[in-house]
Amino acid sequence: MKGRHPMAGSQSSLREANRARVVDAVKKHGGLTQVELAGATGLSAATVSAIVKELVAAGAVEVRNTVRSGRRAQLVTLAHRVGLVAGVVVGYRHLRVALADVSHEVLAEQVLPLPTDHRSDTSLDRAALLIVDLVERVGADLDELLGIGLGLPAPVDPATGMISVRGVLRGWDSVQVAQVLEKRLACPVFADNDANLGALAESTFGAGRELRDLIYVNVSQGVGAGLVLNGRVHRGADGTAGEIGHVQVDPAGRICGCGSRGCLETVVGCPALLEPLYPSYGHVTLRDVVRMTNQDDPGCREIVADAGATVGTVVAALATGLGPQRVVVGGDLAETGETFLGPLRDALRRRTVLSQAGGPDVVPSALGLRAELLGAIALALASTDLFERPDSTDDEGAGR
Amino acid sequence: MKGRHPMAGSQSSLREANRARVVDAVKKHGGLTQVELAGATGLSAATVSAIVKELVAAGAVEVRNTVRSGRRAQLVTLAHRVGLVAGVVVGYRHLRVALADVSHEVLAEQVLPLPTDHRSDTSLDRAALLIVDLVERVGADLDELLGIGLGLPAPVDPATGMISVRGVLRGWDSVQVAQVLEKRLACPVFADNDANLGALAESTFGAGRELRDLIYVNVSQGVGAGLVLNGRVHRGADGTAGEIGHVQVDPAGRICGCGSRGCLETVVGCPALLEPLYPSYGHVTLRDVVRMTNQDDPGCREIVADAGATVGTVVAALATGLGPQRVVVGGDLAETGETFLGPLRDALRRRTVLSQAGGPDVVPSALGLRAELLGAIALALASTDLFERPDSTDDEGAGR
Repeated sequence: MKGRHPMAGSQSSLREANRARVVDAVKKHGGLTQVELAGATGLSAATVSAIVKELVAAGAVEVRNTVRSGRRAQLVTLAHRVGLVAGVVVGYRHLRVALADVSHEVLAEQVLPLPTDHRSDTSLDRAALLIVDLVERVGADLDELLGIGLGLPAPVDPATGMISVRGVLRGWDSVQVAQVLEKRLACPVFADNDANLGALAESTFGAGRELRDLIYVNVSQGVGAGLVLNGRVHRGADGTAGEIGHVQVDPAGRICGCGSRGCLETVVGCPALLEPLYPSYGHVTLRDVVRMTNQDDPGCREIVADAGATVGTVVAALATGLGPQRVVVGGDLAETGETFLGPLRDALRRRTVLSQAGGPDVVPSALGLRAELLGAIALALASTDLFERPDSTDDEGAGR
Repeated sequence: MKGRHPMAGSQSSLREANRARVVDAVKKHGGLTQVELAGATGLSAATVSAIVKELVAAGAVEVRNTVRSGRRAQLVTLAHRVGLVAGVVVGYRHLRVALADVSHEVLAEQVLPLPTDHRSDTSLDRAALLIVDLVERVGADLDELLGIGLGLPAPVDPATGMISVRGVLRGWDSVQVAQVLEKRLACPVFADNDANLGALAESTFGAGRELRDLIYVNVSQGVGAGLVLNGRVHRGADGTAGEIGHVQVDPAGRICGCGSRGCLETVVGCPALLEPLYPSYGHVTLRDVVRMTNQDDPGCREIVADAGATVGTVVAALATGLGPQRVVVGGDLAETGETFLGPLRDALRRRTVLSQAGGPDVVPSALGLRAELLGAIALALASTDLFERPDSTDDEGAGR
């Protein structure tokens, strides 16, 4: 009877699906023991063990001895010879690039300043050159580069790899950003909003591990949010989710680059944030303000605390809608610690319907200014087909 | 080799999983042709056909002739003899109860007024009596009642079946609402926030079919939202998602029942919405205002339009965060059509980052004031184990 059942043919696809779950878990976490793999995939220990054997035989993963909770265990990682991935994060003023192996280990990393109002062509040129340089520096070959994760400070339509809202990153509109970089390096490029990448990284490695729903907020030159809902990054229609920098906070405020009036970014983004300091402090940068705040400068503390309260009112509206378990705050201003987080938390507490559990907690990013970059690497790893389907070697290789 | 594969034992669980997908699709949509079932489940036509045969043999589903797109087709529905479900929606001023069969067909329905500040004990008593009454009216027996979906105008913790925020529905705090009704009728009760049920219904049968991400907003005596994200209702921590009635819109406003100041409900909820009318209009109700607005009364139109603009600013903040494809507006005020929707849409357009696609559209509820009630029925059907596992009859029944 069994053999004639109409679903018997689905067995090999089940095997493939289970193998994909194991590979995805290893890709996501970098390295896991078989016990952890069983936990992460929901598969039985026997199934995991059999799949790992197949994958080792196919050269897709490696197993090495390690110690967990004081006991010997075997760590499963992707095979190192499989290749490299790069993460690129374009900011308003900086370009960050990192090279990592398939176990998420960062091998080389560099930050370059960018001119104000930089344009896509020159910035992507720099990013490409920097990647080539880092690949050389680790003694590898460009052929070994399997994928690139690219973060941009604007909403990115995942379907097109283009910025989906005009005006928020001038000089980058109507550019097929992912494709341009892809052509330069002959390597697949996966583009996303930078705050989405920060959210991905914090939820995978950082302050949001094991949480179903979280809001990641990055307050630096601009303001953005990334949402993790039901354990996955939520991108929304055309990738516009999380654009809290463009929520109105001042109906009589300035016109924003997006065309609306009084957006959050027109109040706490740069240069608006810094302007009240100029008469007394001269021309200061955001980094200066972070440094001076941490040295207890009262004027800078004032600016930073007010920004925290203003960001808090916007996060409150979003948190009231979403009911997240946690708000993770990253970016430059988060480096001032409670000076920024305190007023943000206070505004959130006062304006959020408190459930009996007390509403979401507010914590600083665990990954700091590298969150987006680590997220870009995680995106590249998650999106790249790291090896020829191990299935092809299966008939000979399995069970050896 | 195949038989010795470690995953061979998973075949029967795969069959079970596929059967569950078919049953869930029929439960969700009420009735589907086999072609539609294949589309809804992603299973092959042959697999669907075999599963439907098994389920018919097990008495779980029925197949009857119908016509789709001018061609004869066979409609698969749950077996009618399987039983009944009830939907109950408690409002601030009304109690709605409906009885439906397992194909979502409403067999009987009734609305009762409730006194202001009604309490849980008396209201749940009335709901129980009304259900008993409706069951009798359709000539059925209480034994046939399989499950009850219960909607409340407050956040409901799905884990406990209790309201998770004190003060928003006085007289119902600390009551194990679902359990109380469960005991009265000896039948499982599944409680949820009313706007979540509206969102479920609109996304299943109404204005949000086929959409991944939508915001459903109900503006009646109070204001609530239900979110569908990635095709599923998003409830958030402790069920507090969607509580947009408690987003602050007036920092100098009145204190809300929730303890915060100037919440949206303190401005557009009742009685605040109606108060400006009292000096000239005397004591009017929300239904009066809806009726007079639709008769072009200028004072009522003013009130309703202002409420639309205010609700729009809050929805804008949430939509900017989430990037939904559509905003569906239900509740009493939606019955004034563009008088309410126009200003809401305008506020949303002006305060939302527009992607190249133009941002979310704003449409009225397709189900009107019954959305929540149909959602309660859908929740009951989705949550109830409608029959003993058909698996038990499988060995004899399959393939007959």
